[in-house]
Amino acid sequence: MVLSNWDIQINRMNSLLAKLTDEELSAPTAPRRNAGVYLLGHLAAVSDGMFAFLDLGERLNPVMDEVFLRNPEDSGLEKPSISELKEYWNKVNALLSEKMSHMNADEWFARHTAVSEEDFAKEPHRNKLNIVINRTNHLSYHLGQLAYLVKK
Amino acid sequence: MVLSNWDIQINRMNSLLAKLTDEELSAPTAPRRNAGVYLLGHLAAVSDGMFAFLDLGERLNPVMDEVFLRNPEDSGLEKPSISELKEYWNKVNALLSEKMSHMNADEWFARHTAVSEEDFAKEPHRNKLNIVINRTNHLSYHLGQLAYLVKK
Repeated sequence: MVLSNWDIQINRMNSLLAKLTDEELSAPTAPRRNAGVYLLGHLAAVSDGMFAFLDLGERLNPVMDEVFLRNPEDSGLEKPSISELKEYWNKVNALLSEKMSHMNADEWFARHTAVSEEDFAKEPHRNKLNIVINRTNHLSYHLGQLAYLVKK
Repeated sequence: MVLSNWDIQINRMNSLLAKLTDEELSAPTAPRRNAGVYLLGHLAAVSDGMFAFLDLGERLNPVMDEVFLRNPEDSGLEKPSISELKEYWNKVNALLSEKMSHMNADEWFARHTAVSEEDFAKEPHRNKLNIVINRTNHLSYHLGQLAYLVKK
């Protein structure tokens, strides 16, 4: 159920991206707020970070964190082109989805990599499944903002 | 875990509401988009609808659906005041939270009231827990928009 809700939000994002021109995606989602293209990079970097939290192997592009997680849009850091970002987004989520589909219940209820064994003993809900629930909400949050790029 | 993620989003909404003046909450979240106050009514009505889906008894105020779910902001329908809406939001979520806390695992994995027994046999994920996952994402989606009411 949790994975299916993740997929639903990813599909919504993909439908939204299919609707927007590059120009529309480059526009701010609201005055003085992040541009669509920055949020796309941000969401792709967050998906990429999930490989580490879920212990699914090497992430694809750790450099993106610097541009889209640790720094704001106006950092002056060089950003990938829209087509590079879309490719990154698609690659990350396809691989993530494939790897998540092979995880079993024991793995899902095991601790995620950012919580220590001691803390996990006290807070057993800090497992890998909870990472997906949390990241699905994060994706929904920014989807609400990205929806404002669609012209009324 | 699912319920705790619901509570996290409700608490985020409450922190946001505590930060906004009535004037800020009455403003559009972005040009030509829903006002904060409309989204507050919308989210409260969606929470209220969960009593029915989860089979938790009578909902508090079905009339709100007409104003905040079935019709857009510019419907011309009379709307409650901000203080009435906040009271509605708080009451609905307090009662919902209390009632959800008494549901056991069997109830959570039982079908929700909007799916028939036949369909549920084919799609067993359409249970009550899935309603909460889905509504948590819905809340996050609009929280992303409401966050734009906070002045930069």
